[in-house]
Amino acid sequence: MGSFIEISEVGPRDGLQSIKRIMPLAAKKAWITAEADCGVPEIEVGSFVPAKILPQLADTAKLVAHARSIDGLKVAVLVPNLRGAQDAIKAGTHKITIPLSASETHSLANVKRTHKQMLAAVREIANLIKSAPKNKRPLFEGGISTAFGCTLEGAIPKAKILELAHALMDAGCDEVGLSDTTGYATPDHVISLVKAVKNVVGEQNLKGLHLHNTRGLGLTNVFAALEHGITTIDASLGGIGGCPFAPGASGNIVTEDLVFMLDSMGFKTGIDLGALLKVRDIVTDALPGEPMYGFIPDAGLPKS
Amino acid sequence: MGSFIEISEVGPRDGLQSIKRIMPLAAKKAWITAEADCGVPEIEVGSFVPAKILPQLADTAKLVAHARSIDGLKVAVLVPNLRGAQDAIKAGTHKITIPLSASETHSLANVKRTHKQMLAAVREIANLIKSAPKNKRPLFEGGISTAFGCTLEGAIPKAKILELAHALMDAGCDEVGLSDTTGYATPDHVISLVKAVKNVVGEQNLKGLHLHNTRGLGLTNVFAALEHGITTIDASLGGIGGCPFAPGASGNIVTEDLVFMLDSMGFKTGIDLGALLKVRDIVTDALPGEPMYGFIPDAGLPKS
Repeated sequence: MGSFIEISEVGPRDGLQSIKRIMPLAAKKAWITAEADCGVPEIEVGSFVPAKILPQLADTAKLVAHARSIDGLKVAVLVPNLRGAQDAIKAGTHKITIPLSASETHSLANVKRTHKQMLAAVREIANLIKSAPKNKRPLFEGGISTAFGCTLEGAIPKAKILELAHALMDAGCDEVGLSDTTGYATPDHVISLVKAVKNVVGEQNLKGLHLHNTRGLGLTNVFAALEHGITTIDASLGGIGGCPFAPGASGNIVTEDLVFMLDSMGFKTGIDLGALLKVRDIVTDALPGEPMYGFIPDAGLPKS
Repeated sequence: MGSFIEISEVGPRDGLQSIKRIMPLAAKKAWITAEADCGVPEIEVGSFVPAKILPQLADTAKLVAHARSIDGLKVAVLVPNLRGAQDAIKAGTHKITIPLSASETHSLANVKRTHKQMLAAVREIANLIKSAPKNKRPLFEGGISTAFGCTLEGAIPKAKILELAHALMDAGCDEVGLSDTTGYATPDHVISLVKAVKNVVGEQNLKGLHLHNTRGLGLTNVFAALEHGITTIDASLGGIGGCPFAPGASGNIVTEDLVFMLDSMGFKTGIDLGALLKVRDIVTDALPGEPMYGFIPDAGLPKS
């Protein structure tokens, strides 16, 4: 082993969208700066959605501008539609992800769009990116959410995931990702789906997983995925976040615990775990009383 | 996959020894009966240690007698010395484990014995077993504790673990086990040590791991171990327990979460997870306020 695994910090987006209180802009900036200083290579700083839907993320454009000023940091955002993509490109985002829920029921509940409507938006966004100046073109990821099952629909057939993965690439995405929105993923399911999707879209076009720790298997699923060519893992500081529109879903993978595991396995992450543990204070100071999770923060590092 | 993985429930021993309050004998019996009814194949019902050291486990002989009356259940106990082994054999235990701490500092703190003294006791116990009538001879496991590191000594050299594994077999153990007393184990370390110990003692003579979830890697370590021929996993209902003599150690693997993972991977455990979740009530009723852990108990099973 010893290769590089890219951790994408999604706390400022997935974490904060599931918390009702609004973190002040200054605290968000401090959080992003502090994590970048620890060596976190990519941060999903927000989502370009209407402020009336997610007021917690209304300052995403300002955060993109701030994060872009940090040397070497890859700045990612989520966009639900063309309008969001326009804002993201205008702000100078490096990477945009559009979530496409494999569960059409969840898609309708979450963004009020059918698969067909979402894929039409993907095509429009791909064309928009092509028409942008070369240095303004973000990487465009199609993120298949509820890929491991849905709290509304239950299991999603593998054939549906493969169909959507192919359709996303066909509509102009640069790569696809798989998202365990509901915390249903188990290691064998991860292995099976990663292999099948890579087979459809090509080895290099599925790099990332967004996993939750709802059923305690978050890190085990990462471990299984690493053995099958996954190189980008989403995680959130203190494990905050989940999906507010998928009832019962909770708990992103804890960034601190993920770094500990990857370090122990000899992977390079570029992240200073000791420094990262101190960043938690910024979040707890800005959102007092908000639960922060993690085993390493509680237990500490082993005595060496 | 699809093969059988033996879950050994250690809650009545490792769980209760770390809780100051004493669970009433009737509740312990009900717990053991209920878990056996769920299909749990092996239960470590107690430890034959002086009552003044662990009053919580003073009724171990009665529990062995009770558990032996349950058809098909393998009844296991821990013994620290010859005296304990005599009691265990007299009670009719099916399996006895003697813990040998790889950290001599921990061994002295825990049982006030050097490695040499412990190995002498192992030899005496092996002779005692040989002299017992055939139908009274328990399986004899040498459990290497602090195998993945010690909160007092730090890392333990692999050569020391291999030396002790060989010495335990040489002194007459039927098999050895590895115990992550301090929650230091990481998946690569598990793989490396399992391979090395199997190489020394023989593939069939290292079957079991006793892991903790102190740093959130309990199930990931199990996953890694299963890929390398481990077939017996210790776990405790609600994750209760740890080692009271290793400061900072806490949290056995949660039996409920382990069963969920193994089920999802197609392994057979013989355990009815739905029924197992209801057994928690026996423990919480007998020890009100005692924290019980587990992701599956909180999140529930996925919608299928």
